[in-house]
Amino acid sequence: VAEGNLARRLAFAAVAIPAVLLAAWLGGWALALLLAALGALGAREVFDLAGRQGIDPLRRLGMLGAAGAPLLVALGLVGPRPGAWAELLEYLGALWFLLVLSAAVSRRGPQGRPLAAVAVTVFGAMYGGWLLCFALLLRHPAPGPLADGRVGTALLLFPLVLTWAGDTAAYAGGTAIGGAKLAPVISPAKTWSGAAAGLFATVAVGLLYAAVVFARVGVSVGLGEALVLGLAIGLVGQFGDLAESLLKREAGLKDSSSLIPGHGGVLDRLDSLYFVLPVTALLLGAMGIA
Amino acid sequence: VAEGNLARRLAFAAVAIPAVLLAAWLGGWALALLLAALGALGAREVFDLAGRQGIDPLRRLGMLGAAGAPLLVALGLVGPRPGAWAELLEYLGALWFLLVLSAAVSRRGPQGRPLAAVAVTVFGAMYGGWLLCFALLLRHPAPGPLADGRVGTALLLFPLVLTWAGDTAAYAGGTAIGGAKLAPVISPAKTWSGAAAGLFATVAVGLLYAAVVFARVGVSVGLGEALVLGLAIGLVGQFGDLAESLLKREAGLKDSSSLIPGHGGVLDRLDSLYFVLPVTALLLGAMGIA
Repeated sequence: VAEGNLARRLAFAAVAIPAVLLAAWLGGWALALLLAALGALGAREVFDLAGRQGIDPLRRLGMLGAAGAPLLVALGLVGPRPGAWAELLEYLGALWFLLVLSAAVSRRGPQGRPLAAVAVTVFGAMYGGWLLCFALLLRHPAPGPLADGRVGTALLLFPLVLTWAGDTAAYAGGTAIGGAKLAPVISPAKTWSGAAAGLFATVAVGLLYAAVVFARVGVSVGLGEALVLGLAIGLVGQFGDLAESLLKREAGLKDSSSLIPGHGGVLDRLDSLYFVLPVTALLLGAMGIA
Repeated sequence: VAEGNLARRLAFAAVAIPAVLLAAWLGGWALALLLAALGALGAREVFDLAGRQGIDPLRRLGMLGAAGAPLLVALGLVGPRPGAWAELLEYLGALWFLLVLSAAVSRRGPQGRPLAAVAVTVFGAMYGGWLLCFALLLRHPAPGPLADGRVGTALLLFPLVLTWAGDTAAYAGGTAIGGAKLAPVISPAKTWSGAAAGLFATVAVGLLYAAVVFARVGVSVGLGEALVLGLAIGLVGQFGDLAESLLKREAGLKDSSSLIPGHGGVLDRLDSLYFVLPVTALLLGAMGIA
């Protein structure tokens, strides 16, 4: 969590939290447009980090790819051929990948570090935009008895609420207890006590969410399943946080950008969710829940 | 085309061409295993190119990803849930992507150039392995009247035959005619006359293939469609060739490896096909042919 003026942080939260809840509730194109914007901004921050190390990615093509992925998934989920989202991503993703390589031929040349430029372009679009697509898959479960707006909203808010609870508890626990450092080279402020507090809170909120919210919308999640989901989200979210810290630390930065007052950049805010969203979607699918 | 002993080149071709034809005819797991091996070897060559520029990708995870992609697609095409190939790639691809990032946290650290390492790992697996998956999609068209082994074999051999014909004609035409260079900085041996000869041969063989082979197996491809396919394959293949030359030139190499006697490496042999296979699959789908 970045330091910053408390008032500015609260003012941002007062706008951002209702906007995210509204997009989650509306789903479809509204959610896809929010994700497309976040995707392009996140990819741009990755490209800025790369730029500090002498790598010059194909920025516009990369941001286009990051914004295009959620829009394609929305087209494949709520468009004329529901269920086609994955094939659309594969075919048009391959076409985009070849465009990036072709652009490097004409715009970078052998002296422009083309391998690193192309690789970071692809990576930035996937990290910033593609990983967020799993939010749409949670919001729009496969056609069937669960394809109800309240169910999809509850499924999408599940990883968001657990991650926010875990982050807050990790910050509070680490500050209150202190102690041994978790990963001093990558993220000096993190402690094992904070990580444990975060994991505990994630699991506790997960059990509560299953018992209250999932039960209310008619999604059946057993105690053991809720426990596994909470543990996985708590652990994976901390890996996501460390991975983003690693990329910033390499570039010698504390925040990925100063876009959000008091919060750093988009990558700083979404770091855990990049990991949590796909893993939640995968686990819910594997458990036969959604 | 690399120079080399003619006898060794012919001996290699005498083994490789029947092996590729056999795998194309068998399809399914046999084809997937060949593609998995080529994927891992191709990714390894990308990682070797990166290593010459001080980037240290996560080699084993990258080769695993490159080999895993065609195997997953085979599972999703001929396994218990036909049609699931794209979703399998998306979900397990995301999990693999997160594994690569997590491995960088524990094994690279901020001093190990983690952004470039992770980006090249992802890029190498996609370039070397993922792009080859479209060969399986050509071989196994969607269930329906076309889902016949002869049809799939004819669809897969179409881009292969056109690419080989175009490469040969480009080499012969460039040698015989010479003249202005196509891209002297990237690939000094290529001439505009060779590129034109290659494109002409690709279109001519495409028209012939449609009239003879596609007609024989009952796939209806009109004259205009065959023309578009031939032009697209001819053009895109030359971009694929230039893209691979660019990556080698950056590393100061003439061949991507010395794996194949007289032929260079896997990347050298497959450079055009990395571009041609996805574009052929996309165009045949868009034309409603397969």
